[in-house]
Amino acid sequence: MQTDFAGKKVLITGGAGFIGSTLAQRLVECSAEVTVIDSLVPEYGGNRFNLQPVWERVRFNVSDVRDHFSFERLVEGQDMLFNLAGQTSHLDSMEDPFTDMEINCRAQLAILEVCRRVNPTMKIVFASTRQLYGKPAYLPVDEKHLLQPVDINGIHKMAGEWYHILYHRVYGLRTCSLRLTNTLGPRMRIKDARQTFVGVWLRSLVEGAPFEVWGGDQVRDFNDVEDVVDALLLCALSDLADGGIYNLGAHPPVSLRELAELMIEVHGSGTLVMREYPVARLKIDIGDYYADFGLIQSTLGWTPKVPLRKTLERTLAYFREHLEHYV
Amino acid sequence: MQTDFAGKKVLITGGAGFIGSTLAQRLVECSAEVTVIDSLVPEYGGNRFNLQPVWERVRFNVSDVRDHFSFERLVEGQDMLFNLAGQTSHLDSMEDPFTDMEINCRAQLAILEVCRRVNPTMKIVFASTRQLYGKPAYLPVDEKHLLQPVDINGIHKMAGEWYHILYHRVYGLRTCSLRLTNTLGPRMRIKDARQTFVGVWLRSLVEGAPFEVWGGDQVRDFNDVEDVVDALLLCALSDLADGGIYNLGAHPPVSLRELAELMIEVHGSGTLVMREYPVARLKIDIGDYYADFGLIQSTLGWTPKVPLRKTLERTLAYFREHLEHYV
Repeated sequence: MQTDFAGKKVLITGGAGFIGSTLAQRLVECSAEVTVIDSLVPEYGGNRFNLQPVWERVRFNVSDVRDHFSFERLVEGQDMLFNLAGQTSHLDSMEDPFTDMEINCRAQLAILEVCRRVNPTMKIVFASTRQLYGKPAYLPVDEKHLLQPVDINGIHKMAGEWYHILYHRVYGLRTCSLRLTNTLGPRMRIKDARQTFVGVWLRSLVEGAPFEVWGGDQVRDFNDVEDVVDALLLCALSDLADGGIYNLGAHPPVSLRELAELMIEVHGSGTLVMREYPVARLKIDIGDYYADFGLIQSTLGWTPKVPLRKTLERTLAYFREHLEHYV
Repeated sequence: MQTDFAGKKVLITGGAGFIGSTLAQRLVECSAEVTVIDSLVPEYGGNRFNLQPVWERVRFNVSDVRDHFSFERLVEGQDMLFNLAGQTSHLDSMEDPFTDMEINCRAQLAILEVCRRVNPTMKIVFASTRQLYGKPAYLPVDEKHLLQPVDINGIHKMAGEWYHILYHRVYGLRTCSLRLTNTLGPRMRIKDARQTFVGVWLRSLVEGAPFEVWGGDQVRDFNDVEDVVDALLLCALSDLADGGIYNLGAHPPVSLRELAELMIEVHGSGTLVMREYPVARLKIDIGDYYADFGLIQSTLGWTPKVPLRKTLERTLAYFREHLEHYV
């Protein structure tokens, strides 16, 4: 894979965020010419520090995907677009559904319209989410599961994903969509629970504060960010992926209680407080979830490689060293 | 049913359109207090003439669902909202996806936000569409079929439907969604093929011109508008329907060639020209479609009653008399 990206011109929206910046670093290591777009809205996860190790080797462009006028110039001449920018907070989407629509619907459609017009042969990989499935009707959840989103964010991400698929089917754009599950790793957002409760747990651990686990029996799957980057890169390289939709995931699924206990063990200390799941949030809770990721395994040969313990070790070590840039 | 609506305050968006105006007339016959909202954008099907028989007995308010400032005053005090306004042209949605988004996404979300704020106990029935399913993976298509829209209109209607379902699940609004298939009857839009090719066939027949059938072997199901109105009213009356999603449909499905020939037979004359299906349109064509409508049958007791021949007789008779108001 290393050589396949050498000299390739790559654009990453949301490239200063957790996954985007990890992807940018990997692509720089592969000698790609990387342009990062990020709005640096603090709540959405963009953080200049994430790009610090490659700051001199990426072109950084402050842009919001809602500002579509600038986008055309940035898309011209690129070989690949990793379209990772998005509003990802479920609670924010319920409080301000129209902002969520602007980012996750209108901006996505505008991006695809620009690609269609100025760069129709570029490869486009879209970061979708398991949130589209809502509360699972069966486990593990495969791509044939109905989409039944339980929040506005899920509805808009569903539309965003289908714009990508539609623009492949109708206009032949080389798009594909990865439905990400919980992703963990260095550079994730830990300031608050906007993107994931695990962020708050990590922060509390590193700050030596107790943290709350709500419920605890819910089962989830967790991917290391480097495994997610592998999947993004495989999609970008494979013509087979054009028009495809793939779950990511990991075996075995773990309960939130198990995850919390493993984090404390890996960190060497920590206090968890078990709490009942808040009734007010039950309506948008999805209960247990883990994915069947057999389709991307058989089609593209992707498989998650990093064990959860290793991910937690790397992640906790990172935040022990760089906490001040993330709180 | 007649008495259940007596004195009820009912709001209909898109109430000067084909289905909305037929619903308005039925509700007036049931002694409901009907307020009709319609933007009267000619391309979308709103037509004052549709309401002519009940003009003195409905309150008509020219509003576009995109003009959300006026909506709040109109929603206050209503018992029911039939939310039928929409951009329904698949081709228009591909040419101008952002307008389609404004009408089918943003306006729907704005309507639900207003309902939640000023009238959270009102019943809300949303007109969705079989277009959400895209190209069927199996027949007949039931509500468990994946949503795989093949055009922008389908993506936005999917979002619009899910806003309704979500606002039930999270906020307890009394919403439900009917996935309509092809609906036929007096007052349908026949000026061009924006809403359905059958409109153009009807117009050509009445004007004595030949009409084209593309392909001809595709199978579809057709509902009489009065049967659709029955379903809308049943949903409005039943608490069982809250949060529900139901297909409409009719047995037996018929091929487009059979439909065309039956129309000529019923009209007493006519010339059809068979043409190959245009390659450029194949990408958004869904092939054969007919619905499994067993869920609404078993849950609400709805069943289509009007035979297709009868529908065509009534429809052709209507347009022979009133053609000048529809071309």
